[in-house]
Amino acid sequence: MQTFSELATQFSAYFNKEHFPQTPQSLYDPARYFLGLGGKRVRPVACLMGNELFDDLKGDTWNVAVAIELFHNFTLIHDDIMDKAPLRRNQPTVHHKYGESTALLAGDVMLVAAYEYLNKITVPVASKIVNLFNKSAKEVCEGQQLDMDFEQSLDVDFDAYLHMINLKTSVLLGGSLQMGALLGGAGARNQNLIYEFGRKLGLAFQVQDDYLDAFGDPEKFGKQTGGDIMANKKTFLLIHALQTATAVQRQELNALLQTNTPDKVHGVLKMFQQCGVDAWAVELKERYLQEALQHLDDIAVVSKRKEPLKQLALFLIQREH
Amino acid sequence: MQTFSELATQFSAYFNKEHFPQTPQSLYDPARYFLGLGGKRVRPVACLMGNELFDDLKGDTWNVAVAIELFHNFTLIHDDIMDKAPLRRNQPTVHHKYGESTALLAGDVMLVAAYEYLNKITVPVASKIVNLFNKSAKEVCEGQQLDMDFEQSLDVDFDAYLHMINLKTSVLLGGSLQMGALLGGAGARNQNLIYEFGRKLGLAFQVQDDYLDAFGDPEKFGKQTGGDIMANKKTFLLIHALQTATAVQRQELNALLQTNTPDKVHGVLKMFQQCGVDAWAVELKERYLQEALQHLDDIAVVSKRKEPLKQLALFLIQREH
Repeated sequence: MQTFSELATQFSAYFNKEHFPQTPQSLYDPARYFLGLGGKRVRPVACLMGNELFDDLKGDTWNVAVAIELFHNFTLIHDDIMDKAPLRRNQPTVHHKYGESTALLAGDVMLVAAYEYLNKITVPVASKIVNLFNKSAKEVCEGQQLDMDFEQSLDVDFDAYLHMINLKTSVLLGGSLQMGALLGGAGARNQNLIYEFGRKLGLAFQVQDDYLDAFGDPEKFGKQTGGDIMANKKTFLLIHALQTATAVQRQELNALLQTNTPDKVHGVLKMFQQCGVDAWAVELKERYLQEALQHLDDIAVVSKRKEPLKQLALFLIQREH
Repeated sequence: MQTFSELATQFSAYFNKEHFPQTPQSLYDPARYFLGLGGKRVRPVACLMGNELFDDLKGDTWNVAVAIELFHNFTLIHDDIMDKAPLRRNQPTVHHKYGESTALLAGDVMLVAAYEYLNKITVPVASKIVNLFNKSAKEVCEGQQLDMDFEQSLDVDFDAYLHMINLKTSVLLGGSLQMGALLGGAGARNQNLIYEFGRKLGLAFQVQDDYLDAFGDPEKFGKQTGGDIMANKKTFLLIHALQTATAVQRQELNALLQTNTPDKVHGVLKMFQQCGVDAWAVELKERYLQEALQHLDDIAVVSKRKEPLKQLALFLIQREH
């Protein structure tokens, strides 16, 4: 039973090895470069924690955790191409540094490498693990497609947005925990509960992310706020504002969305506040967090074992920001 | 024991089913569209034939064959993005019809679908099959990267080009046959021989492809010749011409490569003939074909069973063109 940060340290050391052949360097150096940019490694560590909730860590769980992290990085490399993002973790993205075609292939080969790790596991539930992995993988692709579809759409309702976020960011966290739990010997009910814990936690995290981009303290947030607003990105906040605004407010908000001046952020934030979006988002985040914790509570395991997962939830949902 | 065309008909019927969820349509319609464009299904049928060389067809072999065909189509969708190709099988490519981002994701999700089929197989050698699949998958990505690297390079020697072609087109044919053989119960030596049969056959096929693009009869070839020459594509012919030309010829050939006029094709073909590239290519193709057939001969199975694979080789290497 270890904390998130203890396991994260162990996982980072374990993950920090060679995952690819040496040549061709023109393909594998970009893949290595991206993995070297780091990250919080939340999903693979969640997998380890899912295992530890029920039993001692299994050797196979490390392979699954590595596969999850490689998969996650594959999605980031490809998402960055689609989003034409120049930076990731303050460093050039793969396509920016090496070109789009190489980034595409480096992502592809990283996904194959993920399946190489999955194919190392030897437990009887191996096939169930791969099923869960594939299900999450497809859903993440579906979420990314819906996210792109929504960029082209003026009229996205809350349920559609929630469905997209669920696929794009929540199912992999839930799935990572569930795969770990399955490896730890959890039964179907407990697996389902830990999956829902992760899924709701993912939703709470996304609400927070959207909130901080609008209302966060730039110093604590680590980057300039208002990026989503300037990019007209659909967020929990914008969707809710458009749904609850009066006809006059909606007209004003839509007019602001057409502009691209520096005071756009200020104007949209004012509209958000008029619509009560800020308080609503804080409440929504808290609700998802409580639902997540309730699922964790319901898992049939002594509560002491749940402490690290509770800490993970509170670490991800940093209330002080 | 069935012929290539008998098995191809059966496989096409088997493959012509729903491989994806209905929604989101914006993701899965493009994937369905591409599979609907058809193809010769050479690799999956090679997998079935590899099985039948050694034993009756296993149910699992159909799943592996589907996985191979999905993988192959995934590579085509992504290659078309990288090559900025507007057409595939005389129809718009996925990125041309649906946009690059959707094509990228449709390819990704098709690769995941391939692994879903692989995860259905239950034989004791399942893990070995996935290993072979992953090895081929990585090598195909490596070949594609090398192909792109060579586009930027003026000086590609024969061995480097052969290595690239081997990865990009040969290993998947060899691997498909080997996976089938493994499912049919072949031992290590026979597996290796059938793999080499496929690999050499792939090389012969590529030499023929390069040859027909330069010297083929457009009516029989089904498309205008000279496309590779206009695009300055590295081919067996160009590499050999540059290596065997005299200093004067090489200068003339390099000068022609700099041009973009309609008589470029005629000029380069004349140089090819001066360097004896046409006869050399016919000989090289024949050598690879004979090496392939020799490997087939060496497989420890009664020769009657090898007849369909021999026919496949002669079908792919159509000498009359």
